[in-house]
Amino acid sequence: MITSSSNSRIKQIVQWQNKAKERRSAGIFLVEGFKMFGEAPEERIREIYISEGIWDKASEVPEIKDKLIRRGFETVSRELFRKMSDTQSPQGILCVMERPQHDLESLLAVPDPLFIVLENLQDPGNLGTIVRTGEGAGVTGIIMGSGTADVYNPKTIRATMGSVFRVPFVCTEDLCGTVERLRENGIRVYAAHLDGRRYYDCFSFREGTAFLIGNEGAGLGKELSSKADSWLKIPMEGRVESLNAAVTASILMYEAHRQRHS
Amino acid sequence: MITSSSNSRIKQIVQWQNKAKERRSAGIFLVEGFKMFGEAPEERIREIYISEGIWDKASEVPEIKDKLIRRGFETVSRELFRKMSDTQSPQGILCVMERPQHDLESLLAVPDPLFIVLENLQDPGNLGTIVRTGEGAGVTGIIMGSGTADVYNPKTIRATMGSVFRVPFVCTEDLCGTVERLRENGIRVYAAHLDGRRYYDCFSFREGTAFLIGNEGAGLGKELSSKADSWLKIPMEGRVESLNAAVTASILMYEAHRQRHS
Repeated sequence: MITSSSNSRIKQIVQWQNKAKERRSAGIFLVEGFKMFGEAPEERIREIYISEGIWDKASEVPEIKDKLIRRGFETVSRELFRKMSDTQSPQGILCVMERPQHDLESLLAVPDPLFIVLENLQDPGNLGTIVRTGEGAGVTGIIMGSGTADVYNPKTIRATMGSVFRVPFVCTEDLCGTVERLRENGIRVYAAHLDGRRYYDCFSFREGTAFLIGNEGAGLGKELSSKADSWLKIPMEGRVESLNAAVTASILMYEAHRQRHS
Repeated sequence: MITSSSNSRIKQIVQWQNKAKERRSAGIFLVEGFKMFGEAPEERIREIYISEGIWDKASEVPEIKDKLIRRGFETVSRELFRKMSDTQSPQGILCVMERPQHDLESLLAVPDPLFIVLENLQDPGNLGTIVRTGEGAGVTGIIMGSGTADVYNPKTIRATMGSVFRVPFVCTEDLCGTVERLRENGIRVYAAHLDGRRYYDCFSFREGTAFLIGNEGAGLGKELSSKADSWLKIPMEGRVESLNAAVTASILMYEAHRQRHS
């Protein structure tokens, strides 16, 4: 059992919890909790840590127990685990995961793809909610510009409820160029824009579709908006000026799903 | 200018920020920021406080300046304002608002009403997002059981982006009884339920409609679910087991809006 906070592996975990840059350069991310561990693709698990006293609880669930035994794990003291954890009430299981590698080519190889493209989305909770809802709505890829929150932020990962393991995504420095490539590949690109003239439910999303979603406060930038085939808006009654970015994305993704399945 | 934290009005504000019960028994709520102040119904403003040095900025906007002059305000020192504020970076304007009084009768008097009914919704941000999206989608009333987060929680109020001033809502100790009353008045009641057999887009929401939305983790309770006319579900691809409660509510509210306007 590891009990010392000067243990080099523990120090590394604490650093990874706090520093996006360190996680990135190591090519890893951290996940916590039984549900997330249960859903984590086994071949991408690098290290597993459980808190002292958790083994009895963990071994009650055969699937969890077998996965722990197959992959091997380290036990750490309760006090140390609290230091390693990002949550206030840690569930007592944490693993280091290898990042998946997706590229635009593979995302474009799917028939009639459905993309969400995120520009400068700031809130980790919103991002996680979009990934979760995206999997539910059958989104085939998420494309994030470099101004968007880190998808491997612990808050984002929690909010995805496991979808982070399954929805393919790519991060790009050149969001405008990527959107041009989508269009060259026959994808219709729609900007969710407050100045859109036509409502979202006037369009067909049955074929290859990408929705551009902008920053929570400022919306989409001019340059990216200009790359879209069409601007669309969601009708708003009363005095509402805009909707939450995750809500906007969810309404669009599920409208695409509704059309594709009706 | 008020500079002392022992000032009785300041002590009262600090107490109201922290204690839902005290706000309730005083029949008030607190709002902060220029946007919220601008949208606050004037007849319900009881007190206004601005931070030292904010007058110049406030008086640049004629609408804000006139409202401040008409209603009168107190200036407090910067340090004191930080203590009164719920936010990390206060905008320097805070007001005490009288709570609106709605009853079920007035909500039922609207033709073809559209209700959201919330049972044990815990997250203040989710609640605020539902109120904001609800106004946008043309919801005519929100009904909250006593287990739902306080709609006057400062986080909820911020997340509503002003919709809290405009969407009528009632809080009730007897959510099951209230749902029965909706049905007696010809409202079709739909439970958003993971065990629903039919998808949400198979139903017509053109006439009086109520959607029941449950707790983020546990969903709707058995008793309330049994009061619904129908259970509906949102289709979910991949391995998604549920959607965020605010996302579920948003998809349903905007499907009702789409049907009512097509």
